[in-house]
Amino acid sequence: MPGNSFGEMFRVTTFGESHGPAIGGVVDGVPPGIAICEADIQHDLDRRRTGQSRHTSQRQEPDQIEILSGVFEGRTTGTPIGLLIRNQDARSKDYSDIKDKFRPGHADFTYAKKYGLRDYRGGGRSSARETAVRVAAGAIARKVLGDDVLVRGALVQIGPHGIDPENWDWNEVAKNPFWSPDPACVKKWESYLDGVRKQGSSTGAIIELTASGIPAGLGEPVFDRLDADIAKAMMCIPAVKGVEIGAGFAAAILSGSENADEIAIGEDGQPVFLSNNAGGTLGGISSGQDIVVRFAVKPTSSILTPRRTVTTSGEETEIITKGRHDPCVGIRAVPVGEAMLAMVLADHLLRFRGQCGA
Amino acid sequence: MPGNSFGEMFRVTTFGESHGPAIGGVVDGVPPGIAICEADIQHDLDRRRTGQSRHTSQRQEPDQIEILSGVFEGRTTGTPIGLLIRNQDARSKDYSDIKDKFRPGHADFTYAKKYGLRDYRGGGRSSARETAVRVAAGAIARKVLGDDVLVRGALVQIGPHGIDPENWDWNEVAKNPFWSPDPACVKKWESYLDGVRKQGSSTGAIIELTASGIPAGLGEPVFDRLDADIAKAMMCIPAVKGVEIGAGFAAAILSGSENADEIAIGEDGQPVFLSNNAGGTLGGISSGQDIVVRFAVKPTSSILTPRRTVTTSGEETEIITKGRHDPCVGIRAVPVGEAMLAMVLADHLLRFRGQCGA
Amino acid sequence: MPGNSFGEMFRVTTFGESHGPAIGGVVDGVPPGIAICEADIQHDLDRRRTGQSRHTSQRQEPDQIEILSGVFEGRTTGTPIGLLIRNQDARSKDYSDIKDKFRPGHADFTYAKKYGLRDYRGGGRSSARETAVRVAAGAIARKVLGDDVLVRGALVQIGPHGIDPENWDWNEVAKNPFWSPDPACVKKWESYLDGVRKQGSSTGAIIELTASGIPAGLGEPVFDRLDADIAKAMMCIPAVKGVEIGAGFAAAILSGSENADEIAIGEDGQPVFLSNNAGGTLGGISSGQDIVVRFAVKPTSSILTPRRTVTTSGEETEIITKGRHDPCVGIRAVPVGEAMLAMVLADHLLRFRGQCGA
Amino acid sequence: MPGNSFGEMFRVTTFGESHGPAIGGVVDGVPPGIAICEADIQHDLDRRRTGQSRHTSQRQEPDQIEILSGVFEGRTTGTPIGLLIRNQDARSKDYSDIKDKFRPGHADFTYAKKYGLRDYRGGGRSSARETAVRVAAGAIARKVLGDDVLVRGALVQIGPHGIDPENWDWNEVAKNPFWSPDPACVKKWESYLDGVRKQGSSTGAIIELTASGIPAGLGEPVFDRLDADIAKAMMCIPAVKGVEIGAGFAAAILSGSENADEIAIGEDGQPVFLSNNAGGTLGGISSGQDIVVRFAVKPTSSILTPRRTVTTSGEETEIITKGRHDPCVGIRAVPVGEAMLAMVLADHLLRFRGQCGA
Repeated sequence: MPGNSFGEMFRVTTFGESHGPAIGGVVDGVPPGIAICEADIQHDLDRRRTGQSRHTSQRQEPDQIEILSGVFEGRTTGTPIGLLIRNQDARSKDYSDIKDKFRPGHADFTYAKKYGLRDYRGGGRSSARETAVRVAAGAIARKVLGDDVLVRGALVQIGPHGIDPENWDWNEVAKNPFWSPDPACVKKWESYLDGVRKQGSSTGAIIELTASGIPAGLGEPVFDRLDADIAKAMMCIPAVKGVEIGAGFAAAILSGSENADEIAIGEDGQPVFLSNNAGGTLGGISSGQDIVVRFAVKPTSSILTPRRTVTTSGEETEIITKGRHDPCVGIRAVPVGEAMLAMVLADHLLRFRGQCGA
Repeated sequence: MPGNSFGEMFRVTTFGESHGPAIGGVVDGVPPGIAICEADIQHDLDRRRTGQSRHTSQRQEPDQIEILSGVFEGRTTGTPIGLLIRNQDARSKDYSDIKDKFRPGHADFTYAKKYGLRDYRGGGRSSARETAVRVAAGAIARKVLGDDVLVRGALVQIGPHGIDPENWDWNEVAKNPFWSPDPACVKKWESYLDGVRKQGSSTGAIIELTASGIPAGLGEPVFDRLDADIAKAMMCIPAVKGVEIGAGFAAAILSGSENADEIAIGEDGQPVFLSNNAGGTLGGISSGQDIVVRFAVKPTSSILTPRRTVTTSGEETEIITKGRHDPCVGIRAVPVGEAMLAMVLADHLLRFRGQCGA
Repeated sequence: MPGNSFGEMFRVTTFGESHGPAIGGVVDGVPPGIAICEADIQHDLDRRRTGQSRHTSQRQEPDQIEILSGVFEGRTTGTPIGLLIRNQDARSKDYSDIKDKFRPGHADFTYAKKYGLRDYRGGGRSSARETAVRVAAGAIARKVLGDDVLVRGALVQIGPHGIDPENWDWNEVAKNPFWSPDPACVKKWESYLDGVRKQGSSTGAIIELTASGIPAGLGEPVFDRLDADIAKAMMCIPAVKGVEIGAGFAAAILSGSENADEIAIGEDGQPVFLSNNAGGTLGGISSGQDIVVRFAVKPTSSILTPRRTVTTSGEETEIITKGRHDPCVGIRAVPVGEAMLAMVLADHLLRFRGQCGA
Repeated sequence: MPGNSFGEMFRVTTFGESHGPAIGGVVDGVPPGIAICEADIQHDLDRRRTGQSRHTSQRQEPDQIEILSGVFEGRTTGTPIGLLIRNQDARSKDYSDIKDKFRPGHADFTYAKKYGLRDYRGGGRSSARETAVRVAAGAIARKVLGDDVLVRGALVQIGPHGIDPENWDWNEVAKNPFWSPDPACVKKWESYLDGVRKQGSSTGAIIELTASGIPAGLGEPVFDRLDADIAKAMMCIPAVKGVEIGAGFAAAILSGSENADEIAIGEDGQPVFLSNNAGGTLGGISSGQDIVVRFAVKPTSSILTPRRTVTTSGEETEIITKGRHDPCVGIRAVPVGEAMLAMVLADHLLRFRGQCGA
């Protein structure tokens, strides 16, 4: 199977390059009868858009979504939903320099090696521009999950500066340009990012996602475990280098008695976990606790600092990547991560219902 | 698609429970004409076996592999390879206690929630016993990759005790029961694990895998990126809670100029990377550099320390998990991780050849 | 997996309804470096278009194709090809009658039963309109197969009137509005169809497809046999009720000595079959002979003759289906059948290359 | 994806050669809690077994099934069901002659071309022996469908001799060695087959299958239509050359007013179709009517009449295929066809439930 589809039952297939006429995709397998409209999708797309603060790329794309099929009189029909976003602000001249040079840290070299030729304009298919379609599909996934499920994310670290978990307040996330849940670190991040930008450099980040209201039972061991599909979903976001669930890498240091979440009976007579080191999955199946995921995004490789590289004809040279880039691409990864997580959950909800009938 | 298959073109489907009559699987899509025999597979299985030191479970399973099809006169025929391993040392009585209690940190609760019923003997399908079949399939994957590719792993941390990367020596790995590449930490780990075992507890670990000799061009963006499929491959190993590629989570702290690997022209006139923060993939496609992956394994949840839990009928209770368990299940995860990585690479080698014809 | 994708390595995903804003799709897995342009696709689309003779529907759709991605400077890049066709001549008022009635022979009843709601305008997703996207994808598949492969089809029977196989001349096919390879039956079919149309009725047809130049070795037994995938490809064309390969149903009557194609050595020293009852596949794998397929198309169910049916609210009634319909939908099934066959062959070419490396 | 798996949510993967140690497979995706035991499967396997009359192969295989996993205390657990059948009566010496010759009508030539090497013993993987595993999987599919669904088949033609549909009596089917629903033709078929066998020849056949009790709504247009998946399911049975649904090829001759099944309101107030030319599907989705399928099986290619062929080294020669063969392999195709149909229906039942939630 080629690589531009994601999910088994809730299945998204995308297309489009950074500087082509359009990006878009098909969402197949959506249950019928769900109320959805373009405004629902636009809302999520707007959260991912560039040019909304000085901390993200200044490319001005309205990212206006068009639903081409699969929705009739305001409801999904169960047939595939075609999605289209026309590219508007593609300035191909910005990229003429990279036609003949491989940008370090970018996919220029590997696309050339794999395919023999490449659309070099703005990174072509390897540009993060394609993630807009994921966000659109994620908006549909949220509708499939329903109102009882809440999938949300926040930035928890920029470069060396992490948030204080004690200050976590979900209400703060939408109030600052960094999706920070900790208002105390907004100023710090602003000044740090301003410095990074002035140096012509960039910085990495860590994002944390939470999904609440997920019923127990989702996940298909032994390979399509819920956590495994989440790991893939995060790692297939451009620039992501690491993923962890629950206690994550810290679990390596814990003892068995510290790590395993004990169970008691709650006030409602149902089993309740006394901690959540598991991050909401046991044996690859959701437990009913919150799903908690973190992923690390590397610093943007498009920087103004000169870097050594080679030309497509095999000569050593240097490169400076001008253009309109995110100094911290991790910021806009927050809505993308949410979308990918929502898609995994919607997919497993349908798979669970298919096999187990609930 | 149900969850017990892995890979698109090199495809493994497994079955079997810890205490059933057998475990096994089918490996489909193997190229024809590859020399392979049961001894090749047995070699890898023996590396994963329990009972080989006091630091792993004392269950005595010969893990004797039988090839049932797909190999004729010593060579693969291109038809599916059936694999069978009979369970020998299944002591069901050890597990009678867990029939009615959910073990904290185990999949007992989630399997019950998902399926309504479960084979409680030894964890049934959720037992790490199924990973033997993965190792067998991984041995076949290695043959597909050929002699120029080397997939190997090492334990780099047990509990709080990491190796010194300066001491890394691949030749040491097979010489100690921990797969440690650093001979200096073997004694330390031995005494640490003896302590853990005496306390009736367990500990986590971190494994690092490297694949050398991988050609540039493997990986299918935007979703089936090589790094994304590797992330899934690692996270679907039982007890794994985190995965990272190359610089991994540390990339979040690096600046763009530190992180992006510069390129020069090597002595052979070919492009050569001056560092490997990418861990061998750019844009989800292999670059020709070593693939470098790390994953974290949580401490075994089967411990002798009493833990709070609930019964299947909804009453609070305590549980001590007796039986024959690994105090550090991360140790045996080394050959399992290698097998999963080899499978991902073999799969993408065939996928690349299919689309790009090389 | 939802049902709107076709193929494993050459993979087409489509969307769109008869009276929505557009139809389109994504073709993923296309090898890089193949020269292709919109005119190549348009050529095939024009062969399927309505309104080109009085024997097909009078709906006027230009079916103008737009390539949205995956092609750069005239060549495929290996990334997904987005395809878009805007609907132009959708007259929704024609279909107001069918909103509340189930048309006999149509999918109205089953879509309502399956999804609970349906886009009733022109049959919505169940309209043959979606086959335009298949034809577009088939044009790309032809490019993947290359110039040595020739996939072509002809109408061999309309209602009770079959061609005389002795008269078969491929050069005649494009010269008449029926794709008839037998010039002698064109007049007969014209007058027969005029009669059918005047009666307000419709008629069925049989199409024969041939693929020449297919190398031996394509097909993936035991389930994804080449003939099995062809059978599915034909049967998933709207209104198709039967498929046969080679001798087909007539093979039931043959004796073993008549049926099995003998083999000799040809003038070039290569094995040559002395007949082709097999239709080009043995054991589900192409033999190098021509692939020969026939499929039967039922008469259009949209007719002017009043028919008994029921309303969506459960009352008996009658219906006459006005609108712009094909009196013999089998005619336009010729290019659709070719496209489906080309897709199956392109898919298996890549699959073969992936596993067997040739 | 390699070709030895079938189904999307009810998924069967098989392995094994005619003369290897065993055949078997994995059935994944089975809903939990279904009562099943080896005897249930054995019952269906016994219907397919050879050596039960003089009209089928005399190979004596007990086809004893072993369930290796996925069933606990008599019920499915939702985990993969491993199935194993040891080969017992494999006489490899019978096949030494075909090592160096390609048998006409067999897959010897195409397997050699595809894979470069082949297990020539008894046809290896291309032998109809593998269909035993399909029958075993089909028995599980029947359990998934439940008692309200009845999937059954009958032989309706041997060579030129068809049954009289007026005589159809399902109760007769199990009473004769041909699965004939028409007792009047049993004698005729017996004497015809005796003649064929004495001539050292073989004959073809036509099978008809019916599935009753199927709810409306199964099938996933536009590609994974129920009828399309059924067509593939039948055509992937060895020796099948044609498939038709409902009126099938005869629909080509019908007029639109004859063909489209009218709808009325039945005594229970529910819509009822007045005929079944559709064969139970409209637009690729089940209508609630009986699914009716016919498929044609070619005559066995293993015959005692000398036939022209070539050697693997490229010389012309003749061949007589001795061994233990079915003079009419179509007879044993009846239970195989039933199994394939049951699998398609079970798969679509789960897919329907996944998307549409019923």
